Amino acid sequence: MRLSIIIIGDEILLGQVTDTNSGTLARTFGPLGWEVAAIHTVGDDAAAIREAIEKSLDESSLVITTGGLGPTKDDITKGVLMSVFGGSLREDKVVLENVRAVFLKRGLQMNDLTLSQAMVPTSCRVIPNRYGTAPCMIFEKDGRVLASLPGVPFETEGILANGELTAFVKKRFCPDMTFIHRSLMVSGITESALAQHLSDFESSLPEGLHLAYLPSPGYIHLRLDGRAPESHALEEQFDRTFSALEKAVAPFIIYHGVASPAEILLDAVRRRKLTLASAESCTGGNIAHSITAVSGCSDVYLGSVVSYANEVKEGVLGVSSEALELYGAVSEPVVRQMVCGVMKATGATAAMATSGVAGPGGGTPEKPVGTVWIAVGYIPAGETEAVVEAKCHHFPGKRERVIDRATTQALLDLRAIIG
Amino acid sequence: MRLSIIIIGDEILLGQVTDTNSGTLARTFGPLGWEVAAIHTVGDDAAAIREAIEKSLDESSLVITTGGLGPTKDDITKGVLMSVFGGSLREDKVVLENVRAVFLKRGLQMNDLTLSQAMVPTSCRVIPNRYGTAPCMIFEKDGRVLASLPGVPFETEGILANGELTAFVKKRFCPDMTFIHRSLMVSGITESALAQHLSDFESSLPEGLHLAYLPSPGYIHLRLDGRAPESHALEEQFDRTFSALEKAVAPFIIYHGVASPAEILLDAVRRRKLTLASAESCTGGNIAHSITAVSGCSDVYLGSVVSYANEVKEGVLGVSSEALELYGAVSEPVVRQMVCGVMKATGATAAMATSGVAGPGGGTPEKPVGTVWIAVGYIPAGETEAVVEAKCHHFPGKRERVIDRATTQALLDLRAIIG
Repeated sequence: MRLSIIIIGDEILLGQVTDTNSGTLARTFGPLGWEVAAIHTVGDDAAAIREAIEKSLDESSLVITTGGLGPTKDDITKGVLMSVFGGSLREDKVVLENVRAVFLKRGLQMNDLTLSQAMVPTSCRVIPNRYGTAPCMIFEKDGRVLASLPGVPFETEGILANGELTAFVKKRFCPDMTFIHRSLMVSGITESALAQHLSDFESSLPEGLHLAYLPSPGYIHLRLDGRAPESHALEEQFDRTFSALEKAVAPFIIYHGVASPAEILLDAVRRRKLTLASAESCTGGNIAHSITAVSGCSDVYLGSVVSYANEVKEGVLGVSSEALELYGAVSEPVVRQMVCGVMKATGATAAMATSGVAGPGGGTPEKPVGTVWIAVGYIPAGETEAVVEAKCHHFPGKRERVIDRATTQALLDLRAIIG
Repeated sequence: MRLSIIIIGDEILLGQVTDTNSGTLARTFGPLGWEVAAIHTVGDDAAAIREAIEKSLDESSLVITTGGLGPTKDDITKGVLMSVFGGSLREDKVVLENVRAVFLKRGLQMNDLTLSQAMVPTSCRVIPNRYGTAPCMIFEKDGRVLASLPGVPFETEGILANGELTAFVKKRFCPDMTFIHRSLMVSGITESALAQHLSDFESSLPEGLHLAYLPSPGYIHLRLDGRAPESHALEEQFDRTFSALEKAVAPFIIYHGVASPAEILLDAVRRRKLTLASAESCTGGNIAHSITAVSGCSDVYLGSVVSYANEVKEGVLGVSSEALELYGAVSEPVVRQMVCGVMKATGATAAMATSGVAGPGGGTPEKPVGTVWIAVGYIPAGETEAVVEAKCHHFPGKRERVIDRATTQALLDLRAIIG
């Protein structure tokens, strides 16, 4: 079961927009048994689109294209699809109603160009797009399936989330096959050490089960995938195997399921009935941004103080000028005072603080670029004093990478002490 | 002059890592006259890599690959390159010294696997990689050039920034051609209105000059590209044409050159000798993160208060409970108080504040998802009272998009009032 992805759009070839649709597609179809064979990125050019479609239909049984479906003259995908799959344009009432609804919601006027969005080839079936005007179109030919999706990421994500496309693909290619997958997030062990630790487990995996390692800096997502023609046989074996996996990696588990470090921390904060805040120097607001990227975080997340300047560390967080002078901003006493200061300022019962040298400037022989002090603390139930731990880290890479690594580390360090 | 890009790595096909190298390459080679013909993304599979290389050498005179150069067993690109371009492996002393230096810096032990990084094909010339162990390798065949770069984005960016590869390509393909490009950032006009406004300018452009529109939500990057066989003829004409462009779009210019909204604001803040802070509710730290992504921002940026909870708006920023009760957190009085409160708390002389409904929950008929109040203010030189302006915006899309749009708008709104 091979999937080829075609990304269409001059804006990608110009380096103006970063493609994220191919990743969304890979992560959606991977657990359903589809292996991505290749991603072909082409411009808004009929010959190039046609060539990519033909190559993809040749190499894979499922082809998904994104982009090239807007109403402007650049968007020529529909014509190319009719040249490959045949058919002529017809007006689709459901799509037309949707186009009207989207325009009404955005307060925009319809025109002939936008009405053309409701014209679809007679050779395809349509899945409506509630987030935009271009629908998903599904074509079939010689046992192959091609699905054409819009280019705007949140529209493509919306269509995939509704589940109609994945259900159609499953029914079309493997109606009787059962797929199960379940994930664990682990931390505190490197990928190679984990692979060694799990080598016996992996070599004794029953047929149809496969373990995927999806490492990120600071943590690893482990996914057990299973597929079998009969569902109960699989389910029982899958559950048994997953339990064995959980047992094998128990000391390293930080979350049962799939979640970002911010989601993992929020989950722990809710379970412990705490509230959350952050005090950031070198991470400069990225911890707050990671937490507030999670919708619904406002039930426990109170806020953050980005204390870039020492005056803000002193004035808003109450860090002592003695500590700043004696040890410098990048030091254990300062991050400890920051974490206590932000709990006091916001009233939160759990918090993390960062102070470091993100670079490229600012490094010294004692505190080179990449040095980051992280303090995490919380007030245990029934206590009044905070428990605080602080640690110095050295992160490799450039500014952006140091900021990202320090953010993940702070989120996971706080998760670790609140348990 | 066509460029094909090949992105190598299973991690991209699995959707685990988002490719950003192709965008970096397009933005580096575009202004030097290279048009990206296609991007081929393949896994760590010798046959697929070889096929992509052959197709690319067929369609383009310059091919750049990234990835597949690490020391692990997945990395098979070097072997494939030798099967296409010939040669055998030799030890490169300069690369070996570099591998040693990188390991020393990271405090790691060398082993046989890492030493293999210093083995390069005899059929290529090498550009050292100061940020990692795998060098850039340049191959030539039948008038075509292939450059192989590492997959880690900051290593590839580092090699490109050093300029040796672009200089080699220029010398090899168009040694006597002169390329010039210069940019302007404009705001306050849509792309289609700008194109209409500039239609006469564009239709009268001299040969060899081309205007590129690179739109982002909230602003447009305009780049004038010029190429000619003789440098002075081009320079004079280019300067004249660029001046005409500046004149034509004068009311919309927010920056001369290329810069992010945060860089544009920081530039204005420095010119006006102000200091900067932010108070964020719905943007949740993303404004602070955008500003602190700019290295060197600490000379004017003091910090931010992410006041997600109303208690933090009141306690840290001094927003009145009356305003919160009477108008709600997403209101003009509250963002005005937030902007003044953060200037007071941090001592900054310029600031912006946001409060809105990022979604997906929290919307009401009066304040639907996407409603964002933004206030911006500064204390003019010699004054004691801040000038504050506030505006309500409605941004389309999902949570992440609303946060991004509100961030850009706040940065550009503050830039607009401080001038």
